[in-house]
Parts: sequence; C-alpha cells; structure tokens
Amino acid sequence: MTSTINGATDKLQSEYRLKRRVQFAETDLAGFVHFTRFFRYMEEAEHALWREAGLSIVPPRAEIGFPRLATSFEYFRPLKFEDEFEVCIRIAEITDKTMRYQCVLTKDGEKVAAGSLTMACVRKVADEPIRMISFPPDIRDRFEVANG
Amino acid sequence: MTSTINGATDKLQSEYRLKRRVQFAETDLAGFVHFTRFFRYMEEAEHALWREAGLSIVPPRAEIGFPRLATSFEYFRPLKFEDEFEVCIRIAEITDKTMRYQCVLTKDGEKVAAGSLTMACVRKVADEPIRMISFPPDIRDRFEVANG
Amino acid sequence: MTSTINGATDKLQSEYRLKRRVQFAETDLAGFVHFTRFFRYMEEAEHALWREAGLSIVPPRAEIGFPRLATSFEYFRPLKFEDEFEVCIRIAEITDKTMRYQCVLTKDGEKVAAGSLTMACVRKVADEPIRMISFPPDIRDRFEVANG
Amino acid sequence: MTSTINGATDKLQSEYRLKRRVQFAETDLAGFVHFTRFFRYMEEAEHALWREAGLSIVPPRAEIGFPRLATSFEYFRPLKFEDEFEVCIRIAEITDKTMRYQCVLTKDGEKVAAGSLTMACVRKVADEPIRMISFPPDIRDRFEVANG
Repeated sequence: MTSTINGATDKLQSEYRLKRRVQFAETDLAGFVHFTRFFRYMEEAEHALWREAGLSIVPPRAEIGFPRLATSFEYFRPLKFEDEFEVCIRIAEITDKTMRYQCVLTKDGEKVAAGSLTMACVRKVADEPIRMISFPPDIRDRFEVANG
Repeated sequence: MTSTINGATDKLQSEYRLKRRVQFAETDLAGFVHFTRFFRYMEEAEHALWREAGLSIVPPRAEIGFPRLATSFEYFRPLKFEDEFEVCIRIAEITDKTMRYQCVLTKDGEKVAAGSLTMACVRKVADEPIRMISFPPDIRDRFEVANG
Repeated sequence: MTSTINGATDKLQSEYRLKRRVQFAETDLAGFVHFTRFFRYMEEAEHALWREAGLSIVPPRAEIGFPRLATSFEYFRPLKFEDEFEVCIRIAEITDKTMRYQCVLTKDGEKVAAGSLTMACVRKVADEPIRMISFPPDIRDRFEVANG
Repeated sequence: MTSTINGATDKLQSEYRLKRRVQFAETDLAGFVHFTRFFRYMEEAEHALWREAGLSIVPPRAEIGFPRLATSFEYFRPLKFEDEFEVCIRIAEITDKTMRYQCVLTKDGEKVAAGSLTMACVRKVADEPIRMISFPPDIRDRFEVANG
C-alpha cells in the first residue's frame, strides 16, 4: 500500500528482515546465545524498520519517546557463535497510542525463536510525569499493519 | 515446608528476594534502564534462589543444563541510575521436566515490572541432540511451588 | 585525611573495595567472564566510591559530565560463574580537569586483573561543543589521591 | 604477500575494516556509546579478520583458545545512536605464542578512538591448568603483521 507525501508516492512500512551474525560476546558459558540477546536482536530490527520508514526511533523532538509496555520470547532452537540468522519483525497492531510487533528469528529456514514487543508513544517534559499521547501524524502515517 | 536430607531437615526453596542497585551501564540514552536488563535481573534472582537451595544452575555434572523455553516482562514504571529496587522471584509451577517462575520488581513498595520465565531440564551429550529429561531428584527435591 | 564541610569533619575518599559475584550473563562460551566485563566491574566500583563521597557520578546539574579519556586492563587469571571477587579502585592522580584511577581485581587473595581509567570533567550545554572544565570545588574537595 | 596452501596462492591477512552502526542498547544515559562497547567493536572486527583468513576464533579443536592478556582504548570523540562508523583492526605484532592488534575507529574520516588488544594461544584440557602454547602452523600461516 502507498501514501502520498510531498507529492511523492511512498511505500508504508510494515515489515523488516534483518540479516545478522552471532557475535562472541553474545554467547554464554552454555555455548549458545544468551536468552536476553534475542530482545536486542528484535530491537535492532525494529530500529531498522523505522529507518526504512525514513524515521529514527529517537526523534529530533526530544520530548517524544517510545518506552516498552510488554515483551516476550519463545525459544525453539539455540543459536551458536558465528551462526547467520534472520530477524523478521512485522507490525501486528497499531492503536492511537501503541504499536505491537511480532518477530520471528530463523536460521537456514528453520524457526529459532518468536517474540513480541508492545510500545507506547509518550511525551516527556522535564519535571512533568511521562504520559501516553497519540502518535504524531508524521510518524503514524509511515506505518501500517502487516498482512497475514 | 521441609524435607529430610541426610537426616537433616532443610527448608524447600520457593522464593527469593534480591536487593539490587541500577548500574550506569544498564541505562540507555532515554535515561532509564534498558528494557532487556530486566531479564538479567530476573535471572540473577533465579540463580540466587538456586544457591539458597544449595545448588548451582551450572551443575558440576556438565551434561545437564537448563535452557529457557519462554520469557516475558510487563513494564509499569521506569528505573533510573542508582535506583535501589527489589527483585522477587517465585516458583509458579514445577513439572517433571520444566519449571516456571514469576517475578516482580518493586521500588519503594511500588511495582516496577512483572515477568515470567519457563525453563527445561535437558541432557547435553557431545554429538547427540539436546533432549529434555526429568529433573534429577537431588535438584527436584530442593524446590517447591510458592504459595499464593 | 579529613576536610571540613559545613563545620563538620568528613573523610576524603581515595579508595573503594567492592565485593561482587560473577553473574551467568557475564560469561562467554569459553566458560569465563568476557574480557570487556572487567571494565564494567571497574566502573561499578568507581560509582560506589563516588556514593561513598556523598556524590553521584550523574550530578543533578545535568550540564556536567565525566566522559572517559582512556582505559586499560591486564588479565592474569580467569573468573568463572559464581566466583566471588573484590574490585579495589584507588585514585592515582587528580589534576585540575581529570582524574585517574587504578584498579585491582582479586579472588581469594590472588590478583585476577589490573586496570586503569582516566576521565575528564566536561561541560555539556545544548548546541555547544563539549569542553573540559575544572572540577567544581564541591566535587574536587571530596577526593584525594590514595597512598602507596 | 602470499602463501601457498594446497597448491593454491592465498593472501595472508593483516587488516580488516568493519562497517558498523551504533545500536540503541549500546548507548547510556549520557546519550553516547558506553566506553566499554568499544572493546566489543574491536573484538567483532578481530573475529571478522579471522573469518577473512578462513578461520574461526573458536576452532573446532576445542582444546585451543585465545584468551586476552591486555587491552586498552583512548577516546577522542563520542559516538551517538545510529552513527555509522568504521573499525579498522591491524596486526601489530605476532610472536610464537601471542598476537597484538591495533585498532582505530573513525566516523566520517575523523578518529573516534584507538585501541589495542594482546591475546595468547593457550591449550585447555579438562583438569589441567591452562598453558600458553605456540600458534598451530595452520593458524600462524594465515596472518602477517600489517605494514606501516
């Protein structure tokens, strides 16, 4: 699907596939990637999706941020040092103030792990409590929910 | 509840409360603890629970391990540099081959985040596929499900 | 040695000894603590030293910071999961705008590693380049060089 | 320079240039990359250099390893979230049992940081103390000291 920005037709972003290799410092003494690292892989893919949409998850308007509300992972297979794998992140839901991603890691076509991440758009102003706000239109209008 | 080991009466372990302070390297540019760190706090509490049971999560019998099947966190409040907080981990379920924990982080009595972690007991022998096995009795008999 | 603040006599800080246990996520597939973790141990001890001086390395005056100029470690013995060790950090030099620490990690009285860390006091104001400044007196007057 | 392996002519490796982007979780509350991360960037480049030489730093012969003897970094400029930078690692010295690298990080042609890393070749056999050994010829013969 497409939207029109400044007279141009731009593709809305709903999915990103990140290629990645396991680094040594991501392993633990059991010989595999530590389970907490998968959340970093998912976040790297999220930020690449935003760059693909022409945005940064750390917008120049410093008063807006995207803290995490909830996240999870299920693990099916271990990853080892120097394994090459793919992180596919997709937008599963967009509401007025939140976005939910689903994420699948695969290696050689086999499912390694599946995760989810829900974040909110918030307004942070010094000396005021953080509060959830609607996504600004120039962010909201760059994304759509993935099919399937 | 108690069990008898070598004629002695030992308390079964079901819960552990870990006091912790936020370290600088655990924060990110948003000024708070990065969301992936909460999983490490939960794991630190898990391993402290095992030590309290007289065990190590890395047993001398190297052929046994405890990989993670699933984990999740919900976030309610941010943590900042040098905040002092408490990680309470409790055993929610024990099956023949798996254990599930629930975890709550609090700061000054307020709930910061709530997580869960399910792990399995596996047998790792060189050149054989990893497979789930029953917890050995000397591990299983040290733990019980927490009340409430 | 002592200084007088608000009519009270307070000990100047020059050294801190931090007790620490190796956490699982700090190990790598070689079975020992990853070499980069030692810098985090040193930094944890530095911040504990500052707290002991009644200060935070992240002062409420957000325009001051303490970036690192140089750091190093030499490794003598590996650390393993659940090892208990001590991090001793000492102030080796204080100049008008910089402070240099030396750090020794020991386990059971044996030297594990030795490091150094030099940092500067800087002024960060939005839209201005970061520049080194003299330590404010209320920080400078809390520390002294360690003996020996 | 070249060597002959199995009748083929292969280029000896002495240097590797790794392109990298700063990830969110690599920053700290000061808004820049945490100083300990630079050591991980250097190690990522080291392992890429070894892959370029047709080798893995974790050889199939599990009894050989390459622990670190010493490492250091000097910092000249900060790195920020999403900065693109280059890590250039070069072999500065090879002895019978050790290898020393030098490493420079640059962004847009400007020097960000400079590091060094010395590692040793060791033999690890269960229940024996780790001891330094000569590099096996099939490893030693893949590398040479960089010019300049």
